[in-house]
Amino acid sequence: MDLEFLSALAAPAESKVVLVVLDGVGGLAGEDGETSLEAARSPNLDEVAREGVCGFHDPVAPGITPGSGPAHIGLFGYDPIRYVIGRGVLDTAGTDFVFQAGDLAARLNFATLAADGTIADRRAGRIPDEEGRRVVGKLQQVGEIDGVQVLVQHVKEYRAAAVFRGRKLDGRLCDSDPQKTGLAPLEVAPLEERPGEEARDAARLANAFIARSREILAGEPKANFVMMRGFDVYEPLPDFCALYKWRAVAVAAYPMYKGVSRLAGMRVIEEGQSTQEEEFDLVERELPEADFVFLHIKKTDSAGEDGDFDKKVSVIEHFDTLLPRLLALKPDVLCITGDHSTPCRLKSHSWHPVPLCIRAPATARRDACGAFGETAFLQGGLGRVHSTEVLPLLLAHAGRLMKYGA
Amino acid sequence: MDLEFLSALAAPAESKVVLVVLDGVGGLAGEDGETSLEAARSPNLDEVAREGVCGFHDPVAPGITPGSGPAHIGLFGYDPIRYVIGRGVLDTAGTDFVFQAGDLAARLNFATLAADGTIADRRAGRIPDEEGRRVVGKLQQVGEIDGVQVLVQHVKEYRAAAVFRGRKLDGRLCDSDPQKTGLAPLEVAPLEERPGEEARDAARLANAFIARSREILAGEPKANFVMMRGFDVYEPLPDFCALYKWRAVAVAAYPMYKGVSRLAGMRVIEEGQSTQEEEFDLVERELPEADFVFLHIKKTDSAGEDGDFDKKVSVIEHFDTLLPRLLALKPDVLCITGDHSTPCRLKSHSWHPVPLCIRAPATARRDACGAFGETAFLQGGLGRVHSTEVLPLLLAHAGRLMKYGA
Repeated sequence: MDLEFLSALAAPAESKVVLVVLDGVGGLAGEDGETSLEAARSPNLDEVAREGVCGFHDPVAPGITPGSGPAHIGLFGYDPIRYVIGRGVLDTAGTDFVFQAGDLAARLNFATLAADGTIADRRAGRIPDEEGRRVVGKLQQVGEIDGVQVLVQHVKEYRAAAVFRGRKLDGRLCDSDPQKTGLAPLEVAPLEERPGEEARDAARLANAFIARSREILAGEPKANFVMMRGFDVYEPLPDFCALYKWRAVAVAAYPMYKGVSRLAGMRVIEEGQSTQEEEFDLVERELPEADFVFLHIKKTDSAGEDGDFDKKVSVIEHFDTLLPRLLALKPDVLCITGDHSTPCRLKSHSWHPVPLCIRAPATARRDACGAFGETAFLQGGLGRVHSTEVLPLLLAHAGRLMKYGA
Repeated sequence: MDLEFLSALAAPAESKVVLVVLDGVGGLAGEDGETSLEAARSPNLDEVAREGVCGFHDPVAPGITPGSGPAHIGLFGYDPIRYVIGRGVLDTAGTDFVFQAGDLAARLNFATLAADGTIADRRAGRIPDEEGRRVVGKLQQVGEIDGVQVLVQHVKEYRAAAVFRGRKLDGRLCDSDPQKTGLAPLEVAPLEERPGEEARDAARLANAFIARSREILAGEPKANFVMMRGFDVYEPLPDFCALYKWRAVAVAAYPMYKGVSRLAGMRVIEEGQSTQEEEFDLVERELPEADFVFLHIKKTDSAGEDGDFDKKVSVIEHFDTLLPRLLALKPDVLCITGDHSTPCRLKSHSWHPVPLCIRAPATARRDACGAFGETAFLQGGLGRVHSTEVLPLLLAHAGRLMKYGA
């Protein structure tokens, strides 16, 4: 849906919306013929399904498996094909770095270069955060190259980000990481066959930065080199709070999900929140002063990626025990869904439609779904919608969209 | 879905995909309240439905009845509204004629012209293939008109094709066939009110060709004239094999379906294959060296067009008895669907959603469908997709699409 069209209909209201993303919650049946959602003892989720309207969403399109970036972008209402967020920007957005439009960002991996000029360790011995911060500090002395400002930001352990600011640059560049030890690092070069000056300029800057870093890090025993990946120019998303005229808050334990929320313009709660309980504490604290709270639960996806069916079941069951705390807040609209499916059988994200439930006591047209799960939701009243249609549905159920036309 | 977007995600894999099109298989309930699919005793199809994920596809859009060209084009992943294949090109593609981009093609019908200049027989007495080939041979002496190469290709009996090559021409021209005997043939003229030079040029060439043919065929007792229909400029489709990085083979008994597969860039098995058994033989022979096999079964549609409910049932039952041969090949993905519906009651193609089943033991999210038929599939897990979404789903279930975005 066109964002301008939707935004023009959005109007402030007193209602409150909570969007819970159980990351990768959709699944495939295990040996017993049930998915993790179906196998979980989850009386509270089942009750929400009974009270709400259920169905599925396609994160990008039928058959397309999304990364976490596009999957969340879609749920936040942005066309995930039109609004592309590359790895460099997505990773860096998970830190407190503040982007400016046109910044060229890349992931920076510290590595160990052998005397013969080949990569001996692609992760510099997995140096800890403290070491990572120290060597990032050394690289910050680069300051600028050829009139372009160079900002270096630590992300985690051996991972950092480099941002080039001050000139129009093209991010369509190859990575310098050869992906294997024993090989020499690659030159950064434009991806296009006939690159424009902005891509050639960007490649020159990246290679110059790598060379300068090598000089600066020469004395380091482990992190004596950097590799660059995932080049990407930052273009701001239309602001989620301005578009829908509401105060939106994100509660997420993992940096990437904080990052994508920050890119959308939500207020991100920065403090520690590593358990579901801690995240629920924050939702309880923040909802009174917010109109929209996005709550991200990571561990359903981690269990799916590990192929650990029982673990995925137990994360869902744990969430279920906490769910009454959300219901006690009496949000006008509670949406529980995933960003994509992560079937344990596939041990990866997948394209399968994602279970979606909207509980809105005053406005939802209830259906006959009596349980929260993939098979039950085939009978649901929402049918199968596109991820970008979820947000308009939440706004509508919250009385936050005006009538279109006379 | 944008083809470039999809192609960029496509990656080679070891998996094999079989797409079976039971032409016109969708139907409406007969007197007993069952469609042909439902009335058929088809235990193997039912088992495939039980094991797979089911639903429907819309060939073009709800309410739109497709011809065979657009219906197949959609299943092959091309937007059937954007990629238009006219009758002239589609018919000719069923022969061994090799098109070049920009060719202007038209159907050519041999006819009998009376002494008074009116059409006495629009099909020249339905001359047999041999006669048709002979008079096509005579027309090939035209060679060129006004610097444009003129190629004449026999199609079947009194039907042939004319192709103009060598200059940019516009195919938006009216037919010369008056559609009734006793009337004079029409002048070929541009369809547009204000035609460009390329359409006026094309009309002049077509009329000149008709006049030259009349001279050449003057002594023929039956085929002493040609009429031209379905003018169309050939624009190549993006190549199906290159787009999806796989080896695609088409097995079809009828020329038109070979033609549309050839236009997509599939390798078309040319040899005789008039029965379902012969087609299954060829699938068994070709699948080991292919990644994708398209199997086209025509007679479901013919029975529908004839309004012969029992015949349609028996074609389906016959297919069902052969189906275990396909299952024995253990394709990673087996899709059974139609290109459109052809309800016996309507005796024609229709717009009704087409039953669709994807059996992929490793990757499909099963649903509760226990039978292969229109009513059962309403409970299916695929819901209702667009025809162009079928191919991405097959690629996904075959592990042939990479993740989109970080």
